[in-house]
Amino acid sequence: MTRNILLKVAYDGTNYAGWQVQANQRTVQGEIQRAAKLIYGQDCPLTGSGRTDAGVHAIAQMANIKINTKMTLEKIPKALNSQLDFDISIIGAIEVAPSFNARKDAAKKQYTYLVSCDYRSNPLLAGKVWAYGYHIDILKMAKAVEPLVGCRDFCAFMSTGSSIKTTIRTIYSIDISEWMGMVRIDVCADGFLYNMVRIITGTIVHSASGRLAPDAASQMLDTGIRDAGGPTAPAHGLYLAHVYYDNKKHNIPADFC
Amino acid sequence: MTRNILLKVAYDGTNYAGWQVQANQRTVQGEIQRAAKLIYGQDCPLTGSGRTDAGVHAIAQMANIKINTKMTLEKIPKALNSQLDFDISIIGAIEVAPSFNARKDAAKKQYTYLVSCDYRSNPLLAGKVWAYGYHIDILKMAKAVEPLVGCRDFCAFMSTGSSIKTTIRTIYSIDISEWMGMVRIDVCADGFLYNMVRIITGTIVHSASGRLAPDAASQMLDTGIRDAGGPTAPAHGLYLAHVYYDNKKHNIPADFC
Repeated sequence: MTRNILLKVAYDGTNYAGWQVQANQRTVQGEIQRAAKLIYGQDCPLTGSGRTDAGVHAIAQMANIKINTKMTLEKIPKALNSQLDFDISIIGAIEVAPSFNARKDAAKKQYTYLVSCDYRSNPLLAGKVWAYGYHIDILKMAKAVEPLVGCRDFCAFMSTGSSIKTTIRTIYSIDISEWMGMVRIDVCADGFLYNMVRIITGTIVHSASGRLAPDAASQMLDTGIRDAGGPTAPAHGLYLAHVYYDNKKHNIPADFC
Repeated sequence: MTRNILLKVAYDGTNYAGWQVQANQRTVQGEIQRAAKLIYGQDCPLTGSGRTDAGVHAIAQMANIKINTKMTLEKIPKALNSQLDFDISIIGAIEVAPSFNARKDAAKKQYTYLVSCDYRSNPLLAGKVWAYGYHIDILKMAKAVEPLVGCRDFCAFMSTGSSIKTTIRTIYSIDISEWMGMVRIDVCADGFLYNMVRIITGTIVHSASGRLAPDAASQMLDTGIRDAGGPTAPAHGLYLAHVYYDNKKHNIPADFC
């Protein structure tokens, strides 16, 4: 019988062309589907909560996979991991209803961005942090993000290349903190436009270092003009940290995601 | 005039055949000497506080380099870094006396080892932690290391392949702690035999998981027999964390190392 299994997946995105399967590219979705086909001898369609771009990491991406197997839930991650490189790990699996869809059913998501003020990051974190090279005033940054929280039109915080119905999203929180000598930005929203977190980050980091007006993000909201903001921060500082579902409705244990 | 510059160096050892220059191999010492020759147009001999093996990382390796240059101390790390990959960083430079030798003058050193109980490490830490796969009892481990602290003959804690005068060393401390979901082992000693930290780690980890007698390390000390211990823990969980000098004697600022 085909079961619908919700996987929790962590990965280092450095060596992948992003999440989504693409012809002639090594992608995270592609690698997991390849592993599943090897183990279960069948095509196992995998649906992620969303795409992550090339170089973006995940602490807990969620994805459901359809597999015809009697294998126990405990063994499924180990079986898949045995066929995956060490930069992707299936860290958990539960069974969900046949209709559950990791993308459509996602209620909100949280991304984390890490920036270091050094011009060169600690080599043990190379490819995991944006080495910005200028002093960042954390209080200025916390102030710069205030207008972004709430239900807003984020059209100025989007790169071209995606077709979407609306550019209105709700940001529930943006937390700014110092963490292990770096600046950490946690953004929680009901959904994200293409490159939204990276454009927010590039803008508030520039505002907080004095290279852009303190109210640049606010101006972008008011005018809808992308060019009023900072650069799109590099992919390698970004982590998909948490995907939230209606756990009660979908019978997902509280400690799973 | 040729100056003697003490460099503080951090590196991710994953892609290097260790510290020491070897024919036809990419090594950390070799890369820094290559960078220096490019910038200063001369051979710049570099002496590390000690060799690290292939795959071993450094948080703060110390090494002195002889350079004929008028470049300011602030600029030297930036110049070298500009010619180095992101997995090596020169994180500081001071000038020392012509006779100073980073290896001979080292008074003590500290290594850190990271072990995770998971059978597979977090992919964001792949190649940085030993994914051990069994439960580790931290209290048992703290007890297992007690007999190792002090001036002892560590002949059973050495791999063959090095020629040394004596196998007696003094371990000043071994601290066991939980750190970011991992087990962290910090060993401080006046010197280390070949693979000593990795053999200590392999032994106490096996004792703490019940795969070896709780007093295995103690037996090795008593009998001098290597085979009484656990495996040599993998290189990729090991970090050279701190090299100590007589700072007053050598005029080294207290916050430099």
